[in-house]
Amino acid sequence: MKNKSPQLLKGFRDFGPEQAAARNSMFQTIRLAFERFGFAPMETPALEYAQTLTGKYGAEEKLMYKFKDQGQRQVALRYDLTVPLARYYAQNRNELPNPFKRYALGQVWRAESPQKGRFREFYQCDVDTVGISSSLADAETIAAVAAALSDLGIGDYSIRINNRKILDGLLELVGVSAKRTVPVLRLLDKQDKISEKEVKAGLKKLGLAQKQSEKLFAFLQISATDGKELEDNFREVISENKKLSEGLGELADVFDDLNPLNVKNAVVDLKLARGLDYYTGTVCEFSLSALPGYGSIAGGGRYDDLIGSFLKKPEVVPAVGMSIGVDRLLSALVEMELPPSNTPAGVVIFNLETKLEDRYLSIAVQLRRAGIVTDVYYRPDNLEKQFKYAEKKKARYAVIVGADEQRRGVVKVKNLLTRQQDEVSPERLVSVLTEKLGSA
Amino acid sequence: MKNKSPQLLKGFRDFGPEQAAARNSMFQTIRLAFERFGFAPMETPALEYAQTLTGKYGAEEKLMYKFKDQGQRQVALRYDLTVPLARYYAQNRNELPNPFKRYALGQVWRAESPQKGRFREFYQCDVDTVGISSSLADAETIAAVAAALSDLGIGDYSIRINNRKILDGLLELVGVSAKRTVPVLRLLDKQDKISEKEVKAGLKKLGLAQKQSEKLFAFLQISATDGKELEDNFREVISENKKLSEGLGELADVFDDLNPLNVKNAVVDLKLARGLDYYTGTVCEFSLSALPGYGSIAGGGRYDDLIGSFLKKPEVVPAVGMSIGVDRLLSALVEMELPPSNTPAGVVIFNLETKLEDRYLSIAVQLRRAGIVTDVYYRPDNLEKQFKYAEKKKARYAVIVGADEQRRGVVKVKNLLTRQQDEVSPERLVSVLTEKLGSA
Repeated sequence: MKNKSPQLLKGFRDFGPEQAAARNSMFQTIRLAFERFGFAPMETPALEYAQTLTGKYGAEEKLMYKFKDQGQRQVALRYDLTVPLARYYAQNRNELPNPFKRYALGQVWRAESPQKGRFREFYQCDVDTVGISSSLADAETIAAVAAALSDLGIGDYSIRINNRKILDGLLELVGVSAKRTVPVLRLLDKQDKISEKEVKAGLKKLGLAQKQSEKLFAFLQISATDGKELEDNFREVISENKKLSEGLGELADVFDDLNPLNVKNAVVDLKLARGLDYYTGTVCEFSLSALPGYGSIAGGGRYDDLIGSFLKKPEVVPAVGMSIGVDRLLSALVEMELPPSNTPAGVVIFNLETKLEDRYLSIAVQLRRAGIVTDVYYRPDNLEKQFKYAEKKKARYAVIVGADEQRRGVVKVKNLLTRQQDEVSPERLVSVLTEKLGSA
Repeated sequence: MKNKSPQLLKGFRDFGPEQAAARNSMFQTIRLAFERFGFAPMETPALEYAQTLTGKYGAEEKLMYKFKDQGQRQVALRYDLTVPLARYYAQNRNELPNPFKRYALGQVWRAESPQKGRFREFYQCDVDTVGISSSLADAETIAAVAAALSDLGIGDYSIRINNRKILDGLLELVGVSAKRTVPVLRLLDKQDKISEKEVKAGLKKLGLAQKQSEKLFAFLQISATDGKELEDNFREVISENKKLSEGLGELADVFDDLNPLNVKNAVVDLKLARGLDYYTGTVCEFSLSALPGYGSIAGGGRYDDLIGSFLKKPEVVPAVGMSIGVDRLLSALVEMELPPSNTPAGVVIFNLETKLEDRYLSIAVQLRRAGIVTDVYYRPDNLEKQFKYAEKKKARYAVIVGADEQRRGVVKVKNLLTRQQDEVSPERLVSVLTEKLGSA
């Protein structure tokens, strides 16, 4: 009998031991950071009624995995973590704390064209606050993401912040009609990817006169390191448009709150729009300083109109949320050659004689009790094979007991990198290894 | 506009903050236990080619979620974690350590008829060793599961162990034909759920003469607390059947290894067969002593023929694996009223005045830096609402600073259970709260 080689589906990935360990350790760091900020974990199923998800993602909806289940129900695989949050909130709002602060970490599925760095199954990591419109919620969400990124030890990163009301106001001010707002914002959002010339050509295509474009660009050039400075820079026009004035006020409030929260690396970026239609206020993006061309590694914003649209009687339910691009971050960590994993290095107890196997197991019990990651080699084998095994397991020490060591009442501890070895008494083994592993 | 209430799919569950926290903490405990034993994490996708999964689960295959994707490929949602392991191993065996020791923790999907405690999406938690047939691997897998269960603090549990070769041998010995072996084993496996009379009636239906049934039952009554004792009890017939003799030897070896591994609560149970066809040697089940009727909470065994069937040129690839029924365990923990979660209790900083909000945020920064889970209430609100919020968040202390406290340079710390409150100086706040939260 001959099998065809089993295959992975295109756009899907296995996570082998090292990658899975790196990812788990990253997830655990993020969880702890979010929990410190009072966000609680929440999980929804992978499958939902297709009806719950349709009509929420625009043209991208065709990427949703939809099918009929055994009961002939139209079901769909989760496409993001925000719509399930809205569904959950609509069903449970009366029992939940207000505001409801939750984070979620789970896979989503999208039938994208596979390309470098783009997958059909990937993790999203979202942190959201539902039910309050205070600028404190926006600032704390930004601070929570910043804390998670700092805890991950990814080096410097920058935070760019804007407010959709400012953009809406500016577009009104230069006379762009409401129905062209979204396509214009989409175009502006691409400014770090395409040239100014291309953006201007795009604006012309969308029907903007050259004067409008120029006026808009002049406004977007205005920079500031905080909201107050920005308000000053807009002093001449701030009173001419209500949305602009509101947006500038909100942005200033968020910057005011970031200061006591000790978030120092945030700047205003008026060109930041973010692609999604549903943002209504604050928008924000995080980028790695060491890899500026890598795009954003986290981002999000305020979306006051989405959650409420799920309620039986739709109403405005203010919400703000950010998402960490965990897959992108993991690739970035690899590219930056930072050690992404904190998997504890371990020990392999070599197997020299069947009749000493009880001894090996007893040693393993002792080491594991002290929290040391311990492998026992499961059969007497030539030493080369055992060293190779230890190397593949990324172990740092071998514990070696043969007939000779057993007779002399000692244990050999061999550093697998330097090949240097010491003999220690069995009573001292745990403390010696704890110290060696701790100090390396 | 009026929406239909959004619904969860039947057989699927949301995990709200408390349940998700309990489950995460359980997962983390299990991960750490398995890692201590040298098992590395590994993850495969939720979707596979349907072809990879079909023909592996017998009649249950109809429960698999299968559909055509956008590229007209027949795909299926993961039905268990073992077949994907086999697929992964077949593709990567040359790069993997030998033996390959991995654990996996992930959802699987089965379109079961929903009933109490049975869901269409649930987590499996598997620990497997592929590539070696040593009894040490069997014993270490049992010890790793035992360590995870002990770390979870679920109280006493029992471990029943058997070997499929013993059962096969006994069936040969009483003259049951090979083709009836599997249905007879399935029946024997039900002995803790149905009466002896019913089992005997079933055996009759399967064509066993009364004498055969009686002989078989006589054998199955033989009990022992370890393999050696069992071998003694079978002394009269051990030489009459090769499989029986092999099985008894293997079982004795596993018990020999469990002793130095400090696993004391294992017994032989000849009636244990386990439903799955693919077991070839050791089989094992864990049950909670406090909830004996709850069924097994973990189990597994040796399956030397499964993994190799995925190779291009099929061969025997020895493997042993166990699975923890994490969903069942979580329900059991709730039923036993053991605290399933170790979510750290936290603090809510009350919001009394907008102009003190910077102060509240600065305090939050300090507390979080000390690892204290800290919520800031996001707007000045009546105290009743803030207390209610703190209660819903299961916070243990409120930190209260109003104009008066601010002027006097103090901070109020209120125990939310006893309602007792202290005034402390801002400099002492972190140490006071760390101590209070640590000692409660």
